[in-house]
Amino acid sequence: SDAETIAVIPGDGIGHEVVPAALRVLEAVDGVDFEFVHVEAGDAVAERTGEPLPEETLAAVTSADATLFGATGETSADVILPLRDAVDSFVNVRPARTYPGVDAVQPETDLVILRENTEGVYAGIENRLSADVSTLTRLVTRSASRRLGEFACDYVADADADGFTVAHKNNVMRVTDGLFVDTIEEVAADRGVEVDDQYMDAMATHLAMNPAEYDVIVCPNLAGDVLSDLAAGLVGGLGLLPSANVGAERGIFEPVHGCAPDIAGEGVANPAATVLSTAMLLDFLDYDGAAAAVRTAVESTLADGPRTPDLGGSATTDELATAIVDRL
Amino acid sequence: SDAETIAVIPGDGIGHEVVPAALRVLEAVDGVDFEFVHVEAGDAVAERTGEPLPEETLAAVTSADATLFGATGETSADVILPLRDAVDSFVNVRPARTYPGVDAVQPETDLVILRENTEGVYAGIENRLSADVSTLTRLVTRSASRRLGEFACDYVADADADGFTVAHKNNVMRVTDGLFVDTIEEVAADRGVEVDDQYMDAMATHLAMNPAEYDVIVCPNLAGDVLSDLAAGLVGGLGLLPSANVGAERGIFEPVHGCAPDIAGEGVANPAATVLSTAMLLDFLDYDGAAAAVRTAVESTLADGPRTPDLGGSATTDELATAIVDRL
Ligand SMILES: CC(C)[C@H](C(=O)O)[C@@H](O)C(=O)O
Ligand SMILES: CC(C)[C@H](C(=O)O)[C@@H](O)C(=O)O
Repeated sequence: SDAETIAVIPGDGIGHEVVPAALRVLEAVDGVDFEFVHVEAGDAVAERTGEPLPEETLAAVTSADATLFGATGETSADVILPLRDAVDSFVNVRPARTYPGVDAVQPETDLVILRENTEGVYAGIENRLSADVSTLTRLVTRSASRRLGEFACDYVADADADGFTVAHKNNVMRVTDGLFVDTIEEVAADRGVEVDDQYMDAMATHLAMNPAEYDVIVCPNLAGDVLSDLAAGLVGGLGLLPSANVGAERGIFEPVHGCAPDIAGEGVANPAATVLSTAMLLDFLDYDGAAAAVRTAVESTLADGPRTPDLGGSATTDELATAIVDRL
Repeated sequence: SDAETIAVIPGDGIGHEVVPAALRVLEAVDGVDFEFVHVEAGDAVAERTGEPLPEETLAAVTSADATLFGATGETSADVILPLRDAVDSFVNVRPARTYPGVDAVQPETDLVILRENTEGVYAGIENRLSADVSTLTRLVTRSASRRLGEFACDYVADADADGFTVAHKNNVMRVTDGLFVDTIEEVAADRGVEVDDQYMDAMATHLAMNPAEYDVIVCPNLAGDVLSDLAAGLVGGLGLLPSANVGAERGIFEPVHGCAPDIAGEGVANPAATVLSTAMLLDFLDYDGAAAAVRTAVESTLADGPRTPDLGGSATTDELATAIVDRL
């Protein structure tokens, strides 16, 4: 058939609650008809088989058009880093915004972080040279920086944004972040996109005080990890944040939150971040109308629908999914 | 004479306003009698001589008991990094707290960051391997981690704190941050100090939402750079934050803020961060009473004294210094 294939990895803990909820929404939305391949990854399968990322899962992800990923526990790094690699997802797209009626430290936040997703300190080249000395090789290439820069320019054009801000530390990491910033600025200049840049430490201060100043932020891998979690704190926590690991051919879509062992099994986890991740998946596969419908339904539900306990209500995961489906 | 020698580096911009103001306070406080050696560093001297950090300045800093540093501009990295090196300052102490009557994003913040100050990505070992590829070697040693751990244990004992939290990313930087965390945890265990640890990205979220959960945070160099600037944002900006670069024999004391070219020359810069940095200098030289007196005078001034424009008033730098001196 012509249906796109979606690999589905609930993972651990609340992954088993929020992923099925998101699938209910995905199955209800008009105009899409996916084939789902359900596979395992994370602590539970590692416990059982010794392997947090079974071959079968890797194969499913690399042959699917896109993957919906829930959350994993202790084994997260062993699962998500190889998966990002396997689909060559060169950018991690992390929007952070607030919603009317949802408490936030900085209610005016509405930004997106485009995080380099293949290299930097995540290149994983480490050595213990002696009892005293260890090293890690941080890798920055012109090609990865260029690809991210091109993506950022496309993103800005699509989102009708004014331009983007590059976060970096090129006063200390002169050669590597120098290459990163220079390359991205070259791409932006070629494309006629406005770009400014800021030290990542200064950006942390400004984000905390005035997040509304930012729109699109482009940054190296670890900077993106930290700045996006900071942005998450400003909008009220990880609970509502989706993300997309985007490659040229495939993508992996995951809520930013973890597997929340403290509430797992109670059926009260908020599925909104995972549902919003499916909206990013729909965008990626060019179902723009369906993506917009899902987002609108989530926004409307957050505004005046039932609420899960994280947002002060007592609704269940399923009730929230039903409310979202009803508003599609 | 027996007087300790203090090297004084105003630097650039408002450094020339806040450092003299802080010196007025230091000269007025009871029981201390320093010999000051005034030297230059920064953009202005670089402009004139080609050298942001003249030999004479380096010599003054390495022979002084302590250095009071204002702020520098474009050349900051070329000045402060070699200076930190020259006095082997293995820890950067960065307290972040709010003051009654001073607006803050998170008014409950009162924490201190103990930042590794000699290595990590700041080791400065970078290479451009080809047109496409650049690398930086992140260095983590057991000896530097141990020294920081010992300092943290002493700090916790002095401050009567319950323990400390190590921020790191040892799920990704397994060998290097692994060594960092393991070494510090060993030291803490030997010393009977309570320690917990947290991924630096998760800490960014939690700091933004609940900074009151933290007391003493210990972290690698770049993590400390970013997390301390984040904490600065939460307490209302860099304006009131002092810092200490502490070595075994010498220290360099500097406000966290920069040289603020936009207001330089107007005589309205807030000297509080620099005055609080002199309190850290006094602590370092074991003038505990004088240090406490300076801190109390600053707090009292911030509570109901004149205010500089950054805090919504119209007082000048000198008027603030006078108010602090009057309250000593
Ligand atoms: C689990 C971990 C390896 C991962 C990362 O550092 O990228 C996570 O923090 C994230 O941001 O998705
Ligand atoms: C100027 C720069 C090199 C420096 C640093 O990164 O340490 C500054 O940001 C700081 O935190 O003191």
